[in-house]
Amino acid sequence: MRVLIVNPNTTDAVTDLLVNAGRRVAAPDTELVPATAPRGMPYISTRAEAQIGGAIALEMLAEHHGADAAIIAAFGDPGLFAARELFDIPVVGMSEAAMLTARMLGRRFAIVTFTTQLVAWFRDCVDMHGMGSYCVAVRALSEPFASMTSVQVDKEDRLVELALRAVEEDDADVIILAGAPLAGLADKVREKIPVPVVDPIAAAVKQAEALVALSTRKATAGSFRRPAAKPTTGLGDMLAARIGHRDIRHAAE
Amino acid sequence: MRVLIVNPNTTDAVTDLLVNAGRRVAAPDTELVPATAPRGMPYISTRAEAQIGGAIALEMLAEHHGADAAIIAAFGDPGLFAARELFDIPVVGMSEAAMLTARMLGRRFAIVTFTTQLVAWFRDCVDMHGMGSYCVAVRALSEPFASMTSVQVDKEDRLVELALRAVEEDDADVIILAGAPLAGLADKVREKIPVPVVDPIAAAVKQAEALVALSTRKATAGSFRRPAAKPTTGLGDMLAARIGHRDIRHAAE
Amino acid sequence: MRVLIVNPNTTDAVTDLLVNAGRRVAAPDTELVPATAPRGMPYISTRAEAQIGGAIALEMLAEHHGADAAIIAAFGDPGLFAARELFDIPVVGMSEAAMLTARMLGRRFAIVTFTTQLVAWFRDCVDMHGMGSYCVAVRALSEPFASMTSVQVDKEDRLVELALRAVEEDDADVIILAGAPLAGLADKVREKIPVPVVDPIAAAVKQAEALVALSTRKATAGSFRRPAAKPTTGLGDMLAARIGHRDIRHAAE
Amino acid sequence: MRVLIVNPNTTDAVTDLLVNAGRRVAAPDTELVPATAPRGMPYISTRAEAQIGGAIALEMLAEHHGADAAIIAAFGDPGLFAARELFDIPVVGMSEAAMLTARMLGRRFAIVTFTTQLVAWFRDCVDMHGMGSYCVAVRALSEPFASMTSVQVDKEDRLVELALRAVEEDDADVIILAGAPLAGLADKVREKIPVPVVDPIAAAVKQAEALVALSTRKATAGSFRRPAAKPTTGLGDMLAARIGHRDIRHAAE
Amino acid sequence: MRVLIVNPNTTDAVTDLLVNAGRRVAAPDTELVPATAPRGMPYISTRAEAQIGGAIALEMLAEHHGADAAIIAAFGDPGLFAARELFDIPVVGMSEAAMLTARMLGRRFAIVTFTTQLVAWFRDCVDMHGMGSYCVAVRALSEPFASMTSVQVDKEDRLVELALRAVEEDDADVIILAGAPLAGLADKVREKIPVPVVDPIAAAVKQAEALVALSTRKATAGSFRRPAAKPTTGLGDMLAARIGHRDIRHAAE
Amino acid sequence: MRVLIVNPNTTDAVTDLLVNAGRRVAAPDTELVPATAPRGMPYISTRAEAQIGGAIALEMLAEHHGADAAIIAAFGDPGLFAARELFDIPVVGMSEAAMLTARMLGRRFAIVTFTTQLVAWFRDCVDMHGMGSYCVAVRALSEPFASMTSVQVDKEDRLVELALRAVEEDDADVIILAGAPLAGLADKVREKIPVPVVDPIAAAVKQAEALVALSTRKATAGSFRRPAAKPTTGLGDMLAARIGHRDIRHAAE
Repeated sequence: MRVLIVNPNTTDAVTDLLVNAGRRVAAPDTELVPATAPRGMPYISTRAEAQIGGAIALEMLAEHHGADAAIIAAFGDPGLFAARELFDIPVVGMSEAAMLTARMLGRRFAIVTFTTQLVAWFRDCVDMHGMGSYCVAVRALSEPFASMTSVQVDKEDRLVELALRAVEEDDADVIILAGAPLAGLADKVREKIPVPVVDPIAAAVKQAEALVALSTRKATAGSFRRPAAKPTTGLGDMLAARIGHRDIRHAAE
Repeated sequence: MRVLIVNPNTTDAVTDLLVNAGRRVAAPDTELVPATAPRGMPYISTRAEAQIGGAIALEMLAEHHGADAAIIAAFGDPGLFAARELFDIPVVGMSEAAMLTARMLGRRFAIVTFTTQLVAWFRDCVDMHGMGSYCVAVRALSEPFASMTSVQVDKEDRLVELALRAVEEDDADVIILAGAPLAGLADKVREKIPVPVVDPIAAAVKQAEALVALSTRKATAGSFRRPAAKPTTGLGDMLAARIGHRDIRHAAE
Repeated sequence: MRVLIVNPNTTDAVTDLLVNAGRRVAAPDTELVPATAPRGMPYISTRAEAQIGGAIALEMLAEHHGADAAIIAAFGDPGLFAARELFDIPVVGMSEAAMLTARMLGRRFAIVTFTTQLVAWFRDCVDMHGMGSYCVAVRALSEPFASMTSVQVDKEDRLVELALRAVEEDDADVIILAGAPLAGLADKVREKIPVPVVDPIAAAVKQAEALVALSTRKATAGSFRRPAAKPTTGLGDMLAARIGHRDIRHAAE
Repeated sequence: MRVLIVNPNTTDAVTDLLVNAGRRVAAPDTELVPATAPRGMPYISTRAEAQIGGAIALEMLAEHHGADAAIIAAFGDPGLFAARELFDIPVVGMSEAAMLTARMLGRRFAIVTFTTQLVAWFRDCVDMHGMGSYCVAVRALSEPFASMTSVQVDKEDRLVELALRAVEEDDADVIILAGAPLAGLADKVREKIPVPVVDPIAAAVKQAEALVALSTRKATAGSFRRPAAKPTTGLGDMLAARIGHRDIRHAAE
Repeated sequence: MRVLIVNPNTTDAVTDLLVNAGRRVAAPDTELVPATAPRGMPYISTRAEAQIGGAIALEMLAEHHGADAAIIAAFGDPGLFAARELFDIPVVGMSEAAMLTARMLGRRFAIVTFTTQLVAWFRDCVDMHGMGSYCVAVRALSEPFASMTSVQVDKEDRLVELALRAVEEDDADVIILAGAPLAGLADKVREKIPVPVVDPIAAAVKQAEALVALSTRKATAGSFRRPAAKPTTGLGDMLAARIGHRDIRHAAE
Repeated sequence: MRVLIVNPNTTDAVTDLLVNAGRRVAAPDTELVPATAPRGMPYISTRAEAQIGGAIALEMLAEHHGADAAIIAAFGDPGLFAARELFDIPVVGMSEAAMLTARMLGRRFAIVTFTTQLVAWFRDCVDMHGMGSYCVAVRALSEPFASMTSVQVDKEDRLVELALRAVEEDDADVIILAGAPLAGLADKVREKIPVPVVDPIAAAVKQAEALVALSTRKATAGSFRRPAAKPTTGLGDMLAARIGHRDIRHAAE
């Protein structure tokens, strides 16, 4: 099975982090196919950036053929419902997968991340998924960090400290280590935190595999059926083809 | 005062409908500045189209200087919160304005529109604005229509009929005639419907005027402060300049 | 356009504060018509006082003819839904207008006021308007104050301090300076607070103007239609006439 | 124990219905003390009437000394929270008591009443008590009725029919026969309806007895403590005395 | 009237505490019939223990004949809805009764208990009863205690302190002293706490009496009707008889 | 990996249906270990039966050693949170897994089942998982059926019909075919229903595999930590050992 990892950020090193963390839990026959945004921002962290990044994620999905499922690999799930509607394969959001997994491991979860700049967007994402009554805190480091690729190493202790406070002060039953730059960290710190710790990309890979295994079909009715064909102007070729029902791939399906 | 009407659809005739309906209620010193999307879809009606159209709305806002406020003029409010964060002027959503207005005219409102294709997106929009407990129905015509610009004339009777059923069967206290192609219809049918009828573009123009009159400032703290400058790749020039804090206009402010 | 400012308190000096603050934002052709409660309490601050004050607001509305819209000018909106049902003109609540405006300027708002005595009533008002998930705090000074008319001057610094804490500790995106004695304060302190600040009476004046401009009709169906005529005993003459459908004014409409 | 039955309507015959129905379930040592509104409406059925009637209920409570508890005996509970704050004895609302009782007899309840005029007010009351997710329907007869005092006899079969439909179509586990004119009807029709039927006045009498038996104290802190003394103008003497802390009774307590 | 006190714990001394506290408020003709679990845990305090204890409560109810009502006398209400469905008499939960009573005495209540071990289960119970928006805090002592039967004496001052903090810091209008070992404590500390204090067993006894007095019938439709007869294997004789419709008692009813 | 399928019903044939359906989607190295309740009811369908069946599920979990994860294989998830607290391995609920999966395939799902007897319990289960705003309908056949093991064959057409109505009338985006006797049906009818169809046991198997792959740890803090050791009376030996921390297996872990 081929699972496309759609990183809507332009930073290849973050894609590498994601794919490496994903591979650790993937089934033997699962191939993770990485894709880094060809345009956009190095790292999405606000509503405006997510609006743009979500549209870019749709372009990326239109351009990559032949996957069995896809993961939108930014914690705020930019473009998730749009992708789920427009494409025929299952599309999993990293934050959605993390939060659903957290609920199976406890009732109250906390989101821990590396910068306060992400908090508002992550809160909106919690609301978008109707998880407000289960998410007891979004805690973030307020200090500067050197780089996105090293932050999980540089700040490991401080992030564990935040997680411990979420357990003690917010009564969190589960911790989500959120933000693509933290991909893979959960495995390293698991023994230092006394409740289950969820790594969103790992959760997303397992959910993508699960949805493929369940062989559910693309809706042809309801609100996630493929929209009717439309002409467009000035969009990327492949996205325009998909919207206009002129894409070869899906015609063949 | 100059209010930018951002139509994220590519159809000029719909922009004309919107501006004409808006002018009827605008204050004498309010100038409505129309802008039609230079790229995208003729008419946004699904989640995927809204994801793309919302990003285009941001481009349009970056390209138009000198307005005192802006209106995202598609009922689902594509890109609204993103725009409110990224730009310094007040930005009003047509659906948000309509729903807030409806609440001041009653408690339970119904949304009436011209095609079932819009229902899922409109429902998502109701949820996005936390209006689920006030919106008692989204009713739509299920029959085909000739064109977006004539649908409000061709289907006037049928839409009134839907509104009457919403009053009788759903106990709606207020009706919102939703969808840009219905701009201006409320005025024509007001006397045929026994509860207040809201025209979203009219509501939005008045809200834009209100926010300007209140002289509130752009946040420099909180989750709607302008995001920190970021480099970008492959975005439209003006949008990239705005995101990178290289836009002349706002530097001057 | 004539907008009636119904102050359900008996303190004329508070009415003056309200009208002055309202005039600063009113359109040139808007006349604000002040009315101070002829009976009741100097300043409503509890549920019991609001129950009585709301009934007095209805009497006041019945006694003042010829307005195009009315504002219930006490932050808890006493008698608002009752007035909206009983009278033919649009009726706006000061707290409702403030909270709806706050939502167009951000997502999470805090209410800041000058005495803890108001907190319970304001919280009930937040619930009455279904705003619980948007209101992140009601913060109030707990210290004594010299007089209602001077409190906004005497306590300006302390109120700004409360607002700043709401931004920093409660993550408020918008501040509402609530309570009629604070009318006009927002303008003075706007530059000291890094998020938009809403003045409820100013917000209410703009909403009253908006509703009049939209030319919506009085409902003749639904739950805000005028109640059927009823005999009454021992009520004020004009209110009894309105309830009994014996009021000349409205018969003429 | 003396329980004051505050009928905020001016119709003595309805007070009689209420007291008779209440007596059937009252404990031997419970004396029900009837009070009919000396001014107001013959029968409250809308928001405006409830605003006025609630204020009159406060006057009535101020004028009747020596009760151990009181019941606001109109289904929409006009003035309930205000009364609970202003007076020292427990005050029970007829609708609140009915809905709390219904929840102990099942999960989903339906409200059945004799006229559609009451539906909007009853719905507001359901919301006021946070019961929206338990109340599956408010069903009302839409046909005219001869008089408030005979409606429960004249329409018995039709009301039972409504109740049966609520059980079958709305999956109601419990029926509340609401509206003071239906007081006592539950007893007569109990065997015709296959789920528990709640008579609001009966429920309220038992709750008043329960609260007295529990010997809880009047709050001197929190939001239901007695408000600080205030001067008033133009209110009824006894109510003014209570608000001004000049009432003999409570000074003696 | 005979009210069965079903203590699903195996500790007789706790049953005694409950019955003694209940008797203080019971009507003269109410006989409280104590029953201590013949098997199970000395004191239920977690979800797993409640699952088991709830099943044991059903066995106990099946084994005790001739009561007019029953109380599940553990604060988390183990087995409550199951009991209400399976048996013909009214069944009251101690926590449900306490919370409904608290709502009639104020709006915001806090739960105060003697050990943090109970907090998660009590929170689940608050959610089970849909009381989340009314319960402002669950506060518990975190220190060890000598025995369940002496904890209310040993820790009286510390519990009062917790209650006072709930009033001051959480703005609680009412305090519930929760957990069977605290039965009767409310009476002793009432004057030290400035808001009403609810004793759950006392509240439950009054609710049981109320439900019996209201003479409501067992549902024969809806979701609380008695389930159809079923064969069972390996259950207690009397419970099996009840489930299989082979119980003499109820056949006679 | 060994996944224990805990069927809390006593019917072996239903266990077979579940295991067969589960095997179709299980990974090659996943062994499904079936367990049928040694005591209890042939088929749980009400709240009372679920209370008892949930306690039996705990006994079964205590008696089966060496699994890597477990599934509570009855749609209402009896005993799920209790099991998750008491045992060290991940425990998945069939309904929880189905509903979480449904949310990744759309927003609004409907539950379709074979008998109205299950509806109330299933609704409670939806609420228990906080899914009320996503579940648009619980639809059930009201006609009799010959046997639990043949119902999915006998009623296939009728169940498909119900599913189609849920899509058309309730706007369901996803269908869950619920109830253990329908295990495996989704695969057969997938092409007849135009939206994704979820088979709960299949969803649960994939979630169990996912949780094991994620290597999360058992909580030693928070509300899902293992409860402190307790003495018990009259419980099954293995369950008593587990509660008393005398179980060899877990001591070894």
